[in-house]
Amino acid sequence: MTYCLGMMLEEGLVFASDSRTNAGVDSVATFRKLFVFDQQGERVFVLLTAGNLAITQEIVGMVERSLYTDDVERSIFQAETMFHAARVISGFLRTVFNRDGEYFRAHATDFNASMILGGQIKGERPRLFLIYSTGNFIEAGEETPYFQLGETKYGKPILERVLTPHVSLSDAAKCALVSFDSTIRANISVAPPIDLAIYRRDGFCITSRQRIEEDDPYFKALRRHWGEGLKRVFSEAPDPPWRTDTERPLPAQVPLAMQR
Amino acid sequence: MTYCLGMMLEEGLVFASDSRTNAGVDSVATFRKLFVFDQQGERVFVLLTAGNLAITQEIVGMVERSLYTDDVERSIFQAETMFHAARVISGFLRTVFNRDGEYFRAHATDFNASMILGGQIKGERPRLFLIYSTGNFIEAGEETPYFQLGETKYGKPILERVLTPHVSLSDAAKCALVSFDSTIRANISVAPPIDLAIYRRDGFCITSRQRIEEDDPYFKALRRHWGEGLKRVFSEAPDPPWRTDTERPLPAQVPLAMQR
Repeated sequence: MTYCLGMMLEEGLVFASDSRTNAGVDSVATFRKLFVFDQQGERVFVLLTAGNLAITQEIVGMVERSLYTDDVERSIFQAETMFHAARVISGFLRTVFNRDGEYFRAHATDFNASMILGGQIKGERPRLFLIYSTGNFIEAGEETPYFQLGETKYGKPILERVLTPHVSLSDAAKCALVSFDSTIRANISVAPPIDLAIYRRDGFCITSRQRIEEDDPYFKALRRHWGEGLKRVFSEAPDPPWRTDTERPLPAQVPLAMQR
Repeated sequence: MTYCLGMMLEEGLVFASDSRTNAGVDSVATFRKLFVFDQQGERVFVLLTAGNLAITQEIVGMVERSLYTDDVERSIFQAETMFHAARVISGFLRTVFNRDGEYFRAHATDFNASMILGGQIKGERPRLFLIYSTGNFIEAGEETPYFQLGETKYGKPILERVLTPHVSLSDAAKCALVSFDSTIRANISVAPPIDLAIYRRDGFCITSRQRIEEDDPYFKALRRHWGEGLKRVFSEAPDPPWRTDTERPLPAQVPLAMQR
């Protein structure tokens, strides 16, 4: 499994991915799922990948090999807009599908590869896209300022509570790591190191890039603070007003099943 | 979708379920998914159901109709152990499967019905079982003192952090409602009212039974406390040590993609 997260904020973009891949529980490995492509001062792209590693590695390779060509249909460095860049990557995905799709079908395996593409090209604002296995894609907006890939559910509650476009880059990165903490605790198929990239709007270069290992001092401190804080909030929460003792027997009850 | 939760604690058992059913987003309704069967002073059963409502309603009906028969293979009031009672309910499930399974296959629909059965029969400790669609079942133990059905992921992090067999019934009920709050916020197919049942060990009758509506004063206070508490813990968490500004340009970078 995988967990990837891309956030679009007024101040810029934040990206994070885990590094765990598995083909069954007996084949677990570490692979990078966050890729940066930039022309400093001109454009920055961050690509997050999930799904079949053979597909996504091939797509990343196609992106890389085409970067410095002047083929506007294949080079994201030639793209005039982020939408155009998403279209280029979608095209690579469909090229792989057109060649490999029938073999996946023959082996009853899903052709499964999804990606988050974010970044900024000079002349545009920062933009964030979610590209599906089918090759079509959607763009993040103010109401839903983030996209997730992979094991999305455990880490969603904190995003829903905290994340708005007005949050600072620093708070968004903190929120991302809390979201990863919840996911890593719940699912052993998501694991550190976590790759993190922060992009400040109009910077046209990556502002900060971190590889956060399990024993990273900040991540450890954040996890401890969060876990202890949750337990404190829980213990301070009001107790239920309902009786939990049976000293006085309850009156005889109509079985609930008969109340239907 | 559905969210059901059964907890096994030293002090007893706690059960909770939502009441939302849907067959597609355009067919949403409210149905009870928590059922109590008790002979006061002798035995108490709580059954939580998830999956195809036609299947689970039929099973509940079969349980009810057999309660006061002397058929030891069909009446959970005749069962000598909780294991035996789980076997009875598994038998009803398989009876329905044997009759309906081929029609589900013909319509390419999953035969999907899972249940949590908990309770206590005089002479035994309280026990908690998870019954799968296949009719086989597992029992909760000290390491995993809870079972979930349906939309399980959003509400799992709080369980993993707080729930142990040593938690009081009151705290377990509180924990269940926080878990429901996280799930209801994230998934519109899970919704109040929440049915809650608390059973204190060796009481042999339900200690407390509540139907918690959206505007229940305690649930509202708990949700507000929890939401505000999480935001406070988040805002007090240490800030990341990484730069999030671009006043000084970063040195030129080797593209991450090339470091693979």
